[in-house]
Amino acid sequence: MGSCCDAMCNFFGRQKNTNVRISLPAVCFVWQIAMIILFGVFIRYDKESDVRLWHEYKKSHNTTSDIENDFYFRYPSFQDVHVMIFVGFGFLMTFLKRYSFGGVGFNFLIAAFGLQWALLMQGWFHSLDLDTGKISIGVESLINADFCCAGSLIAYGALLGKVSPVQLLVVTLFGVTLFAVEEFIILDLLHCRDAGGSMVIHAFGGYYGLAISWVLYRPNLNLSKMRNGSVYHSDVFAMIGTLFLWMFWPSFNSAITDHGDGQHRAAINTYIALASSVLVTVAISSMSQKHGKLDMVHIQNATLAGGVAMGTAAEFMITPYGALIVGFCTGIISTFGYLFVTPFLERALKLQDTCGIHNLHAVPGMLGGFIGAIVAAAATVDVYGREGLISVFDFEGDFADRTVGTQGGFQAAGTCVSIAFGLVGGAIVGFILKFPIWGDPADDNCYDDEVYWEVPEEEETIPPVLEYNNHMTYKHQDITESNFSVEQS
Amino acid sequence: MGSCCDAMCNFFGRQKNTNVRISLPAVCFVWQIAMIILFGVFIRYDKESDVRLWHEYKKSHNTTSDIENDFYFRYPSFQDVHVMIFVGFGFLMTFLKRYSFGGVGFNFLIAAFGLQWALLMQGWFHSLDLDTGKISIGVESLINADFCCAGSLIAYGALLGKVSPVQLLVVTLFGVTLFAVEEFIILDLLHCRDAGGSMVIHAFGGYYGLAISWVLYRPNLNLSKMRNGSVYHSDVFAMIGTLFLWMFWPSFNSAITDHGDGQHRAAINTYIALASSVLVTVAISSMSQKHGKLDMVHIQNATLAGGVAMGTAAEFMITPYGALIVGFCTGIISTFGYLFVTPFLERALKLQDTCGIHNLHAVPGMLGGFIGAIVAAAATVDVYGREGLISVFDFEGDFADRTVGTQGGFQAAGTCVSIAFGLVGGAIVGFILKFPIWGDPADDNCYDDEVYWEVPEEEETIPPVLEYNNHMTYKHQDITESNFSVEQS
Amino acid sequence: MGSCCDAMCNFFGRQKNTNVRISLPAVCFVWQIAMIILFGVFIRYDKESDVRLWHEYKKSHNTTSDIENDFYFRYPSFQDVHVMIFVGFGFLMTFLKRYSFGGVGFNFLIAAFGLQWALLMQGWFHSLDLDTGKISIGVESLINADFCCAGSLIAYGALLGKVSPVQLLVVTLFGVTLFAVEEFIILDLLHCRDAGGSMVIHAFGGYYGLAISWVLYRPNLNLSKMRNGSVYHSDVFAMIGTLFLWMFWPSFNSAITDHGDGQHRAAINTYIALASSVLVTVAISSMSQKHGKLDMVHIQNATLAGGVAMGTAAEFMITPYGALIVGFCTGIISTFGYLFVTPFLERALKLQDTCGIHNLHAVPGMLGGFIGAIVAAAATVDVYGREGLISVFDFEGDFADRTVGTQGGFQAAGTCVSIAFGLVGGAIVGFILKFPIWGDPADDNCYDDEVYWEVPEEEETIPPVLEYNNHMTYKHQDITESNFSVEQS
Repeated sequence: MGSCCDAMCNFFGRQKNTNVRISLPAVCFVWQIAMIILFGVFIRYDKESDVRLWHEYKKSHNTTSDIENDFYFRYPSFQDVHVMIFVGFGFLMTFLKRYSFGGVGFNFLIAAFGLQWALLMQGWFHSLDLDTGKISIGVESLINADFCCAGSLIAYGALLGKVSPVQLLVVTLFGVTLFAVEEFIILDLLHCRDAGGSMVIHAFGGYYGLAISWVLYRPNLNLSKMRNGSVYHSDVFAMIGTLFLWMFWPSFNSAITDHGDGQHRAAINTYIALASSVLVTVAISSMSQKHGKLDMVHIQNATLAGGVAMGTAAEFMITPYGALIVGFCTGIISTFGYLFVTPFLERALKLQDTCGIHNLHAVPGMLGGFIGAIVAAAATVDVYGREGLISVFDFEGDFADRTVGTQGGFQAAGTCVSIAFGLVGGAIVGFILKFPIWGDPADDNCYDDEVYWEVPEEEETIPPVLEYNNHMTYKHQDITESNFSVEQS
Repeated sequence: MGSCCDAMCNFFGRQKNTNVRISLPAVCFVWQIAMIILFGVFIRYDKESDVRLWHEYKKSHNTTSDIENDFYFRYPSFQDVHVMIFVGFGFLMTFLKRYSFGGVGFNFLIAAFGLQWALLMQGWFHSLDLDTGKISIGVESLINADFCCAGSLIAYGALLGKVSPVQLLVVTLFGVTLFAVEEFIILDLLHCRDAGGSMVIHAFGGYYGLAISWVLYRPNLNLSKMRNGSVYHSDVFAMIGTLFLWMFWPSFNSAITDHGDGQHRAAINTYIALASSVLVTVAISSMSQKHGKLDMVHIQNATLAGGVAMGTAAEFMITPYGALIVGFCTGIISTFGYLFVTPFLERALKLQDTCGIHNLHAVPGMLGGFIGAIVAAAATVDVYGREGLISVFDFEGDFADRTVGTQGGFQAAGTCVSIAFGLVGGAIVGFILKFPIWGDPADDNCYDDEVYWEVPEEEETIPPVLEYNNHMTYKHQDITESNFSVEQS
Repeated sequence: MGSCCDAMCNFFGRQKNTNVRISLPAVCFVWQIAMIILFGVFIRYDKESDVRLWHEYKKSHNTTSDIENDFYFRYPSFQDVHVMIFVGFGFLMTFLKRYSFGGVGFNFLIAAFGLQWALLMQGWFHSLDLDTGKISIGVESLINADFCCAGSLIAYGALLGKVSPVQLLVVTLFGVTLFAVEEFIILDLLHCRDAGGSMVIHAFGGYYGLAISWVLYRPNLNLSKMRNGSVYHSDVFAMIGTLFLWMFWPSFNSAITDHGDGQHRAAINTYIALASSVLVTVAISSMSQKHGKLDMVHIQNATLAGGVAMGTAAEFMITPYGALIVGFCTGIISTFGYLFVTPFLERALKLQDTCGIHNLHAVPGMLGGFIGAIVAAAATVDVYGREGLISVFDFEGDFADRTVGTQGGFQAAGTCVSIAFGLVGGAIVGFILKFPIWGDPADDNCYDDEVYWEVPEEEETIPPVLEYNNHMTYKHQDITESNFSVEQS
């Protein structure tokens, strides 16, 4: 028993080897080849992107109008979402002084793999034609695939700087899989509405990342403390991420809502909620610091809380002032989270959350789910009209008799499902990642691009001209190797 | 009398206190709560974003086509404008070596507050339903709100680095208010056309900022001179702002023009004018320097002059070569402004204009207003067609009998109104900002993020290894605290 | 004969003079004025952007629907392409440690000039009305003009850091001219399909730049070797370029394809191909380095190979797994190119290719042309439907009887034409650029912004506080002038 424990300790605690020269290419190649085979077996164009089917569709609907192709309803929003996934999330994670390559680069890798796997997983659950055995994809599938990656990218936020790219690919494989399952349960079985993904994306992704990070707790992480911070220009880079997320969030929440009023209203609500979050974030950030100075961490993150929290309710008739209130409250909660909850979680729960996804995604996402439940339960025929109620909540088919009150209950239940999936799934994945085969860095080696990237030499600093005076010779030697010696003649 | 003057001098000249820990949160909270209340009382969805109204509209117009919703005409342009406001203006102002946080961060704050207030102010003037007392908002309202903020952001350009965030919120409150009034006078009373806002946005915003800056003249600003400049990478950051403004300006000028040919033509004209500005800016910049070297200040700013100057005329039939000529002339004027006028204004008029908004917004905006007047006056039935003339100039209702000559006169008058509003409004706001309660920095403390931001420690430079030789010991101490001492043993 | 040779050697080899104070403004002004005159003579709005014509068109087609204006089909894609040209290409070339101004700034200049000349050249070849002698332009013309610039911008990638802005304007003048001719031959005479420009843009631009660079071989370029590399933050800037190219490539390949299914399918195919390129690039990059570290050069470039290679086939029914395979193969080939071919070309062929356009544009573009040929030849009525086949390959008019097999042959021929134009045209332009009148830098002066830009003083480093101890005085003098002296008292 003792020796078994010892062996296990040795197994899990042995000297870290961060060489991923075999594992990373192997995983990339095997998975990419698997994608090619599975795409070959399953994935085809849908009726709006297949030339034969679209010509037949137009003929059968007696129209010549290409503008009714879903492409024109959704492609601009798709591109905005795409920017959020790659530039938004990517640059938001460049804030660390020596992990900008890893922030934006691994984000790129995760998303590029995740979206392929998402097209398959979401296809199997949502658009598999049981007759032909094929999945049909169109522009809405691309948006959903991007959304699906977002869950794993959020999780990456908690793990930033502490894991290897191979681990991240594992996080993504399981993350996308879990996402597709919980999404199927929440949207199809519980028949919830969640266009902007407060529940399925943010609450799930947030708790998934937190659970993984909790399992992977590093007791000696303070050995890397000196690299866990920003420098001036890395904070400016991170603002690129923040702003593209902030600006395009109205597209995120409206990308897959109903044509017409649905997309229009979701964009307006999100726009308004986000504006309100900015002001309260500035207020709380300033209040919390001596001299009222603002903290870039808050500005980069908590300003986005309103967008997360409107993910479910944006398509509902929450009213413009309702949107303002949501942004107001979640902005405050999120900033307080950065001030008090993240340090508390680390101290008390041994939970290390690099980007503070607890405050930006987990909690606002959860709140967004419940806000959606309340707004749904409060819907009336007076406000929505009878047809509007049916169209907004999809009260059709099996769900034709559902009341708004019931819908509210299911929305709340859906939020709980997403959290449960995140926590349980994350714990399991975290345990898998503890196996010492994934090339993760040692505790004193975290937040450092040197581990997985060829990093260029330091920026040339000004060669200090050491003048010779009197009895002493100062020789400037080899400034490119970053040292200078001082000699006395 | 004397003691009164003394007291006043003391009042206005006392030691600067830049602590905004109470004032900034207080202003943010009070104003945000006011917004919530006012939105609650006044703001509702319009008929294209309200689910009940849109269903009724479609039924009454006997259509099922959601693509006719204004969302699909304007949302892509809206997102481009949104990027210009937050990333374009924001990053354009990151060029200072130690004020990048303030440039992009306060821009964010101003715009997020301004757009809420703009929705109200513009709503009261333009879309208040007198029966219900409600304002209806849709995607066009969002674009207009972004436009309205632009005026205050332009003003910020003149004040960059010299004011506190509280002052900026005051600038924005009054800026948006003045904007809504002058816009109502120019567009509704004078019935001018100004889709891209040469007059209402650029000329107004430019002169508003200049007037404020003139009142706030700082005689000892040269104490901060060493920070009033760029470093290599801050100039590259600023190019992000420049390029996003440049690329999306066609969307800016076409965002709220007439559906169909109007948006199409405005985009083409702006695209062409901007291209021409780039070449002449490069030419003048190169001519002005020894060895023909280019100056980043010119490339970052004067290349945009063509877009500003096309703000009014872009929707008219100015012809492609007309657009080229506009870009050509205003590009030259703007670059000359940076070379000669800004230094002259500072020296002779005691006007400190950090970003040179005089050359990028005030003068090209004014010129754009007059160009619009000329192009309007030169319109003919031959070129526009009878229906075209009516649709482009809105010669309907009370204005059905107006001639193009009269229209040209009113366009010119509108330009003067916008300048007058900017100058008078700016002078008043400037005086308000002189009260020593706003937390602005002292003259030797300008252009410095340290005042309002928690700035990370300096970028780790390479620890200089001081070798020990012969009789001397060089100890390297505490490089993270940015100093090293040299001791002799 | 000998003295003639000597004279020639002297002529071509004389001391480099990089002063462009006369030549650069002269070229800019002359060309811009020429543009104004030529636009005045030739260019008019097309029927969708001219107010009179659009009103007549709507009346004659008995419609009131503005949404059918081509603007709404293509403007969002146009803006994405515009971002790729200015931010994508521009920031991709900021990776050098001291040539970021030149990378993004000259890219801006080239594109702003090139698009004007392209509107004329493409107009003469494609949309000249022989009755009126006028060219009609609309949003599709703007997209094509941006595409046309891309060829010259790609060529700039090979020349980065080694040429003067005047030379670049010459490269662009000829590049756009050659582009318009080869495009006319390939698209009109050979009747090829090439919506995303694998052939006409990438293969042409790539070989054009390589041929120029080969002629301009600099034997002593290693004198500038220390500046031919990146620093940490310049690599992060370059990722902005990479990501905007990567994200918007679906818009690039779909911008001018057929309305409806054509745009829809092209976007999907490109999205999928690009995802696959990322994984294989990471795999090969990791395999190639000790410890499996990733190389930023590969991530910044080879990840885009799938987009280049899908330029021709994206609008065909290549199927989603076909797209994955294309991205897979070209990603591998491109990364291998960076590892082995670029060094080989420099060593064996005396070909200096700063950005490695051989691996990102020339080879993937050529492959894309042949992939398009194969996919075209494999098209069947079964897959496309009869109408679909006609619409995708434009088998109408003179080409109504062409078979898909013949089409495939012509596609392959078109690829060869584009390469031939690039190589021959590039060689000629290269020879023109060898004349010693263009102000290019000397071999030891390459990759340096100091030559053509006013570069700000170095970033303030931490002022080293040299403490006084015992017998020695260390005086800190004028740190802003970047030196410190050490004196002994």
